[in-house]
Amino acid sequence: MVSKQMQQEIIKGSAIRAMFLEGKEMAERVGAENVYDFSLGNPMTPVPKAYNQAMIEAIETEDSLELHGYMDNAGFPGTRQAVAENLNQRFGTDFDGSHIVMTVGAAGALNVVFKTILNPGDEVLALAPYFGEYRGYAANHQGILREVEPDTSTFQPNLEDLKVKITEKTKALIINNPVNPTGIVYSEETIQNIASILEMKQKEYGSAIYMVSDEPYRELVYDDSKVPFLTKYYRNTFVTYSFSKSLSIPGDRIGYIAVSPRMEEAEQTVSGLSVANRILGFVNAPGLMQKALIKSLDARTDIAYYDRNRRLIYKKLTELGFNCVKPQGAFYLFIKSPEEDEKKFVEAAKKYHILLVGGSSFSCPGYVRLAYCVSYEMLERSLPAFEKLAEEYKEKLHP
Amino acid sequence: MVSKQMQQEIIKGSAIRAMFLEGKEMAERVGAENVYDFSLGNPMTPVPKAYNQAMIEAIETEDSLELHGYMDNAGFPGTRQAVAENLNQRFGTDFDGSHIVMTVGAAGALNVVFKTILNPGDEVLALAPYFGEYRGYAANHQGILREVEPDTSTFQPNLEDLKVKITEKTKALIINNPVNPTGIVYSEETIQNIASILEMKQKEYGSAIYMVSDEPYRELVYDDSKVPFLTKYYRNTFVTYSFSKSLSIPGDRIGYIAVSPRMEEAEQTVSGLSVANRILGFVNAPGLMQKALIKSLDARTDIAYYDRNRRLIYKKLTELGFNCVKPQGAFYLFIKSPEEDEKKFVEAAKKYHILLVGGSSFSCPGYVRLAYCVSYEMLERSLPAFEKLAEEYKEKLHP
Repeated sequence: MVSKQMQQEIIKGSAIRAMFLEGKEMAERVGAENVYDFSLGNPMTPVPKAYNQAMIEAIETEDSLELHGYMDNAGFPGTRQAVAENLNQRFGTDFDGSHIVMTVGAAGALNVVFKTILNPGDEVLALAPYFGEYRGYAANHQGILREVEPDTSTFQPNLEDLKVKITEKTKALIINNPVNPTGIVYSEETIQNIASILEMKQKEYGSAIYMVSDEPYRELVYDDSKVPFLTKYYRNTFVTYSFSKSLSIPGDRIGYIAVSPRMEEAEQTVSGLSVANRILGFVNAPGLMQKALIKSLDARTDIAYYDRNRRLIYKKLTELGFNCVKPQGAFYLFIKSPEEDEKKFVEAAKKYHILLVGGSSFSCPGYVRLAYCVSYEMLERSLPAFEKLAEEYKEKLHP
Repeated sequence: MVSKQMQQEIIKGSAIRAMFLEGKEMAERVGAENVYDFSLGNPMTPVPKAYNQAMIEAIETEDSLELHGYMDNAGFPGTRQAVAENLNQRFGTDFDGSHIVMTVGAAGALNVVFKTILNPGDEVLALAPYFGEYRGYAANHQGILREVEPDTSTFQPNLEDLKVKITEKTKALIINNPVNPTGIVYSEETIQNIASILEMKQKEYGSAIYMVSDEPYRELVYDDSKVPFLTKYYRNTFVTYSFSKSLSIPGDRIGYIAVSPRMEEAEQTVSGLSVANRILGFVNAPGLMQKALIKSLDARTDIAYYDRNRRLIYKKLTELGFNCVKPQGAFYLFIKSPEEDEKKFVEAAKKYHILLVGGSSFSCPGYVRLAYCVSYEMLERSLPAFEKLAEEYKEKLHP
């Protein structure tokens, strides 16, 4: 009785669940400390005290009806203004509160953006490899996701294929930076090139083609990598953000959309986002989280912890002969499968109780994703297992 | 550049905004204390201390990664179980945690249900007068809302028209009880009659037709009115609930879906709801609110306050000769417009600084909605204004 689309989504979901259950069964068999689960992108460093403290203060000091009450669908004015000022200070932008719409995380933000801009049959482009959920987000609003082929030599966007894939039906390009699943950071030059292509195609088709930036990993960058702020390069830009990773609060469901002040019809578009937030059933981003953010916009979880993990696992795997994309951000390592069918490699890893996700889930077969948002101790314990895995593949790794 | 559907929604939204601005302008002109705004259904009685206390306790005592972390998309197992047990204890049902999906309020819950069950072109029935947002919720998932005509003699559902409106395309019937905008409570007999009709039509068409109950006002009932719990009368039932009104926390965005344990394919349906919660971008209901609920499921805001308002305004308006539906629940009074075009009556009321909403917004022209979730003092102050309004209409009210 479940709708046809949802029947397919349940099947996809059950594959993830099967993996989860397999890990659980493995833990029961060999002990949880001997299972090396790198399959999930769950934050594991502590929530900053400033955020929890701001929550308690809000509960203890604010008027309860104001704190827990309805507000403008775009959020509390004070929060919107604080986010705008924080962005301006950090990135030299010129937002005011009217350009910010508070949302139920970045997943909520992307759905609100697509609801606002997509007409049935409009196309949304994603740069492979990309987060698989994007396809569902576009489909929710009768949009169609089209893939831009990966450039597996650099894992920067494949600009030649981007030019080919943009058509008069293209309404948006999703840019996820830093990238899940590769950990790559797109450089300023890359973004400038993408912006030029979109400008050219907008002129060619006489239409608006939006950049929709998905940036939950913005603060998780290493080695002084810089993540360009997209509204500075292209006017028809939505930046969607989640505090899930920078504050380790994915369950709190809080994020925002920042609309470029120079977007065509910016004011009407913000009205659309606000109405979409309501109609889709979000109504508003949770109020208490909005209030707590005002006092913790500069708080960060322990990002150095992820960096330490990154350096350990990247060094070890490359020493063992694995071909890895060097990550500059997020908490993922993208590894070339030593055999063509990465599913077989995922299965082989399981023999050593290592759980990885196949690149096919990110439209990039032949690779696997390792999420290193795990404890350093677990990471250290897992190294001998990787040695055994490398031993099994030694002819492929050292031909 | 905003999508065609959203352009229309922005126009609708701007009508509401125009009214809001008109009220603001009026307040500046004659003083806020002399404006009687009955247009909004915003809770105004205090948030129970138990709920705020439970929040602080959770922040102070729980592991921060667990409290703010990802969880099953259906919610924390402890919250789901607590909601199930609370329902069982109050209504003699037999839910367990697996039948409960925690959601971003009732608006989120309804969207998740429709996403799960609707195929493109499926029809959803609503019993006029009804909350206008239902139309958008169905349209979000390519469903089409069809209205069942009101029975303005009793404002109980028009069962004859219900029988006519159910077709082979009908996938669901929304039941809002107590009803926004009338304050009517559908009786057990009414619900039994609706259930019989749906059973008959399910057999006739060999399809599933769901009852989708929308119950944010369940706890706001007066004079010992009883609100039947729908899973007891019909197996293919979803109950959607929000704590917005019972705890005065609409900005917190917390509610749930309860799936009848006897629903056909109940387990797969719950999987569908859980996946829909994720894909639509909710991901999960906010975690802290879920934790706080465990300890405050029996807490209530001051419902007697609304009852006192209800008695005062109903008595006054009927004494003045207005024809009002006697409300047994929610915080609305539905008044027959003394002239055919209720828009003119709404305008006339504004002369005395009374703000009401026309029944056309609820697919029931010729009536107006008065939301009496206001301070008792404001209500008392407004009575002379209603006297003047009645004086203007004295020939119609006392013919």
